This record gives sequence, structure tokens and C-alpha cells, in this order.
Amino acid sequence: MTESQKTQTQRNWSVPETEVVQRVHQRLEADGSDVLATIVDVDGNAYRRPGAKMLLDDAGDGVGSITAGCLEDDILRAAESVRGTGQPELVTYDLMDDDDDVWGLGVGCNGIIEVLLEPLTPSYRSATDAFTEGRDVAVLTVLSVHGEDVDASDTDSPLAYGDRAYYHPGEDRLSTPSDDDGASGDGGETTEADWPIDVLSEPASELAGRGRANVIDLEVDGTRLEVFVDGIAAPAELVVFGSGHDVGPVTELASKNDFRVTVVGFRGAVDLAERFPDADRTVTTSPGTIEDDLEMGLDDRTYAVVMTHNFVDDRLAVETLLDAGVPYVGLMGPHERFEEMIEEFDAEERTITDDDRSSLYTPIGLDLGGGSPYQIAHSIVAEVLAVHNDRDPRHLRAREGHIHDRIEVEADPTPPK
Amino acid sequence: MTESQKTQTQRNWSVPETEVVQRVHQRLEADGSDVLATIVDVDGNAYRRPGAKMLLDDAGDGVGSITAGCLEDDILRAAESVRGTGQPELVTYDLMDDDDDVWGLGVGCNGIIEVLLEPLTPSYRSATDAFTEGRDVAVLTVLSVHGEDVDASDTDSPLAYGDRAYYHPGEDRLSTPSDDDGASGDGGETTEADWPIDVLSEPASELAGRGRANVIDLEVDGTRLEVFVDGIAAPAELVVFGSGHDVGPVTELASKNDFRVTVVGFRGAVDLAERFPDADRTVTTSPGTIEDDLEMGLDDRTYAVVMTHNFVDDRLAVETLLDAGVPYVGLMGPHERFEEMIEEFDAEERTITDDDRSSLYTPIGLDLGGGSPYQIAHSIVAEVLAVHNDRDPRHLRAREGHIHDRIEVEADPTPPK
Repeated sequence: MTESQKTQTQRNWSVPETEVVQRVHQRLEADGSDVLATIVDVDGNAYRRPGAKMLLDDAGDGVGSITAGCLEDDILRAAESVRGTGQPELVTYDLMDDDDDVWGLGVGCNGIIEVLLEPLTPSYRSATDAFTEGRDVAVLTVLSVHGEDVDASDTDSPLAYGDRAYYHPGEDRLSTPSDDDGASGDGGETTEADWPIDVLSEPASELAGRGRANVIDLEVDGTRLEVFVDGIAAPAELVVFGSGHDVGPVTELASKNDFRVTVVGFRGAVDLAERFPDADRTVTTSPGTIEDDLEMGLDDRTYAVVMTHNFVDDRLAVETLLDAGVPYVGLMGPHERFEEMIEEFDAEERTITDDDRSSLYTPIGLDLGGGSPYQIAHSIVAEVLAVHNDRDPRHLRAREGHIHDRIEVEADPTPPK
Repeated sequence: MTESQKTQTQRNWSVPETEVVQRVHQRLEADGSDVLATIVDVDGNAYRRPGAKMLLDDAGDGVGSITAGCLEDDILRAAESVRGTGQPELVTYDLMDDDDDVWGLGVGCNGIIEVLLEPLTPSYRSATDAFTEGRDVAVLTVLSVHGEDVDASDTDSPLAYGDRAYYHPGEDRLSTPSDDDGASGDGGETTEADWPIDVLSEPASELAGRGRANVIDLEVDGTRLEVFVDGIAAPAELVVFGSGHDVGPVTELASKNDFRVTVVGFRGAVDLAERFPDADRTVTTSPGTIEDDLEMGLDDRTYAVVMTHNFVDDRLAVETLLDAGVPYVGLMGPHERFEEMIEEFDAEERTITDDDRSSLYTPIGLDLGGGSPYQIAHSIVAEVLAVHNDRDPRHLRAREGHIHDRIEVEADPTPPK
């Protein structure tokens, strides 16, 4: 590899999650030699959580990361094997033992990591289409099937190891790959009726909504199934009101932290797309038509930063956002300015309620003490992340329990008939 | 302007503070048409603090920002005037009145901002040399001189409006511009003896060390002086131990947040400079020779992130850092892994003391809940910023008092003779 290739490889490893999914989306129609690696399970602690993805092409380049780097060489070799057989493989890395094996010494994360490697087929479009269109989705993969007797692998279940389906929570609908999609795997084709959707829909909805992944054990008609449910949440939306140059670093950092960013300028703000190249969308609006101009729903998964530096525009944006029930409205400026704004709200009989106040974060940002445009933006995006993830933004060393909350999702084994 | 020029201008406005000073350093020997704008005083609230800088060239381009954008057009005009006269000017922007003037409506920050505009001369090298060599410095500028009778401007003081000196805390030494430096200003040349160094050294040291700026009122032999003391702290040092690809985003974000970043790889780690282009320095080291290989002092202004993902290397790095008294040692990995490390320290009779524990941040980072490489890096750099600025990293809306702590520095009016 040349030096610039090395730099590029390095960069690809640490791209935002959203970029990994977008890259998968782009490569669906490639020559079929790409392999998708996904962390299925972690026992103990690891750098990445279940659901973390890496796309590997046949030149040995990877986009995304499933460890901090130590396992990547071995994963490239495993991908080569998957490419050869055309069949998915589950590979287990035991990093528990610090003393006597190469992984333990190299990674020292005290965890066992299970990785699913599979040839990327067009059937996966069902997942990436949902993501790019702003819908949550869960990718379901059968990891094992057993009869009532644990040793017997002969069952009546139509599902087999490697079978795949996509669950779409909004429509409560499963889609299954067909031969047209270039589907691969031992299990051949399945249909929607083959999957216990009544048992899986609840955990799949929850994991998809939170963008988390888990292995679900379930028992259906005497057959025990292990299904990997890989929830891919639509990116959280961040709407930034403002067009000053302080908007630039907020947009850049939010985008790198996996938010889909819309920059909204007031009153003929021009060249927004050129000035804020990291924004996914830019909109020019006027007081009174904000919601119409936005052309997007403002809901409980929208986060908003208000930094127009214009008192009147700020107030109108805040009012629109609070009326829409947005859970995070960060308002730039000192507390005194917000007090003035409250007086104006009172004068117009739009009283700020306790609910409004719980969504309003002003002065905006975490208290990190920085004063440069980047430092201010860093503290803003840190706050949005913490609110989005429902965290108390203290030092992690002060947190009780695990760094990543474990999601315990269980399928109800006796669904209503 | 073309679109790409607009994007460039936008980017220049929001560069890190360190880049503004570096840009000033580069432009010292330019054609002399550059104008340096510095916020001298803020009454009320404003986007930037005193000391914020913007360098304006005669093509109308600016690097750095002193507001979020609304005042920049007017500042460009003021710079044109300074360029014409060759004399420094103090310009005041009153943003207090929200109702009846253009600034109030546009900025709404409830503040009065005073900006010093001056032709950039080679004399300023005294400041930027210090910065690039890692030394703190304070730039002193006389804003006014009065006799005992307030109305009388005739005094015996050798100092006059616009006079300039540079204070170097480490050496307790003033340097003054000479004609050779292309110095400008009404007051002509001064010498070190003209400046009340015994009165100024204490506040100038404190402001330089903290990178803060303030106007100091002092009275010397019946003469009242107003001196703007612009403290420029050497960049804080962040040393990152590790060479996995998760080091990339930490390096990038720390650099944008004004840290000078050194990446330290163990045992023949190669291509570090190519792989981490945002690092200011890269070093390859071995256990036992860390401090020698670093070729920099580890002291109370060094912050360290330990993320080698190798248990042995991590422990050696942590030991070196704790022994050197570094105030922040962030260690990646779960708490259980740290407990194992403590056992090894105990076994080697290097007990971890309470002091050690107060410097150790593990698990590293703020609790923001993100799991992607960028989100992890964001939480790490947010924690380093908060510790560096001595802040409790909660939501700013929960903070009592001002967002920026006010530094009250007073010169002792009766210094020891």
C-alpha cells in the first residue's frame, strides 16, 4: 500500500456509522465480491457493540470497524473464505484470556466477540433503502435451529441456519429475499409465513427503534430458534436554525456523530449548501412558514439547535419547535436573553410550560469551558448526544454499571394464537 | 466571490484558535497590509471572549472570528481605515439595545464589544514565537493614560496610547518593539524600563497561563493607566498512547479543540505520521524508555489518553504518566480491566494512591452513550476539555452564574519598591 492508501484505509476504519450503511447501500450492485461483517454477540466487554459493521472488498479495504484494529487482519482472511464459498460464516474471537494467546495480549478487552460474515447481496437493499428513506429496520438472521431434544437438529421448522428476513416496524411487515435478489445461504428461500412474526415483532421493533442488536432465543411449536436481530435505526435528525459561520462546526461535528443535519436559514439566506457542505439538507425559510418550508416532520426524534443570533427569529423557531413537541431545543445565548424571550412569550400569551422548559436547553451545550467556535460546537453536539441517548453527561468513571446499557429483549414464547 | 471561495471563507471563520495564531505567525513577514482585530472588552454577553482574534487581509478575507458573523462586514471596513492610517483603532459595538439599531436586531447578545484593530507588524513575532515554542506570553497594549486629575491627559508617564510590550512569564521579562520591527502607534518606542513590570507581572502571568485577556486599571506615581493584557497560553498538550484506528478521531477532534497532539505508538508502530495527519507529532517508543522517547516534559499541563488496547503497554504508560504527575490520565477500557491493572500494580508494589485515582479517568470519557468511533472520541475530547477548563461537565442550563467565568485580575497599586 502507498502512504496515501494507508491514510485512506485508516480514515475508512473510523468513518461514522451512517457512512458505513450508506457505503453498503452504494455497493449493493457492485460485482458481488464484498463481504459484510457484523458483530453478533459480545460476552464481556469490547470496543464495539453488537450491530457494529464493516464492509470488506476483495482488495482488502474495509469501511467501518468492528474492533479497534487488532482483529482486522484475521477478519480479512475470514472474508476471503466467505467470498470463496459464497456462504455466511460465524467466527468467534475469544479475547478473555490475557495471558496465553495473541488476541488476549493484543486487545485486552476481556470479551468474546462473535462476528457474522456474509456475502453482500442485493437482498440487503431492503435494509439500506429503509435507512436512506428515514425508516427503522431490523435485519433478522437465523443462527441456529433445534428440536425439543437439544441434540436433534431435525425439526419441522421451515427456518434454517443463515435464513434472512427484514422487519419493517412502521408497517409491521417482514420482507424475505428471493432468488432475484441474489440471496445466498444454506436455508434457501423462505416466505413471510415461515417466520414467527407475532413473536419477533415486539423485540425487533424495539431494537430497530434504538439502533441496537441482540440475539433472541425463542421457541415456536417445540422448535428452539436463535435469531440475530440487528436493529438499524433511521439516523436521528438535527435541525440547526442559523446561518452564521458558527453553524459550520456544529454541522460538521453532528454529521460525524451520525446525525442527519438540516441547516435552516432565515429571510433569503443564500448559498447555504455551499457554505455548509457537511449538512445533509439546507432550507431557507421565513417566520410563519417554518414547518411548511422544512418539509419534514418535527417529532420526538428531532433535535434542534437554535442559533440565528437574531432575537425575533430565535423566538419564532423556539415557538415552532416547542409546539411540535421536539424533545431537545438547544438555544444559544445567555440566560438573561432567554428571560427576555419568556417575557415576550408571556406578552403573546404563549406561556412557557414546565414541559417546554424540560425540552429547552439554554444556555446551550455541556459545561466544558471552551470558548472557540469549535469548542462551543463540541459542547453542543456532546449535549445533543447525551440527550439522544438518555444519559446524564457526567464522567463515565462516576457511572454505575456498564458503559453500554445492556438491552434485554426477550421474545414472548407463548404468543397469542 | 466564487462558491469555493465562499466555502473557504466560511471555513476560515471557524478555524481553531491555535490556527489563528499560527496564521498570524505566518503572515508577519507578508506585505504589511494585514490587520489584526482582537476583542478587548465585553460588557454583558457576547459570542466570543476578550482575546478572540481575527486576521484580516486586504482582499477582505478573515481568519478567525470575533463574532458569529454579524459584525464582520463592519470590521472589514474598520480594517480598511486602519490599513490607510497605519494606526491602531479601538472600535466599540453596542449590541445592548434590541429595539432600535441594526446590531441589536442582528446579534441580540446583550453586550458591548470593544475591538482593537491594528496593523500587523513584525514586532508581534515576540508573541507568536513564544506560542509556537510552547511558551505562554502576554501582549500588553496601553489603552489610556491620565494624570491624577481625570481631565488632564498631560502626565509624566513615558507610556502613551497604543504603546505595546510583550511579557514573558517564564523569564519574568518584557520585550518592547523597536523601529526594526516596523512598530507603529502614536506612542513611538518604549523601553522595558518605561513599563511598570513590578505591577503588571502578576496579572500578566496569570492571564498568560490561562490564555485569557482583560483590561487592567493601574495607577503608577499618580498616573492612571488602562492596559489591555492579552494572555496567549501555549497550547495544552494531549499525548495519545495507541496506534489503533480509533486514535484517528481522537487526534482530529483534539486538534480542532486547540490541543497540541502527540501520538505515541509502541514497539515499532510504523507510518504514524501518515496514518494520523492531524497529530502535531508522532513518536514510536518502547516500554521503559517512554519519557526519554517523548522528548517533552510531562507536567501539570499535559493531558494523556491511553488506548493501546494492549494490557501491558497500557499499564506501563499509566505508570509513567502517574509518576510524572500528569493531571489527566484517561484510560480506555471497562472498569474490570482497570481492577486487574490495580492488582498488577499492587503485585509490583506500586500502589495506586488517592492522588493517582483523582488523575485517572477510567472508563474514559463523558457519559454520552455513543458507541461509534467518532462518538467515543467525542466523549473523550469533551472530558479532556472539561478537566482542562476545571469544569463540572453537566448541562450548561444547570450551571449557576455566567457561562464564561470572569477573571478578576487586579494590579496591586502599591508594589514593593
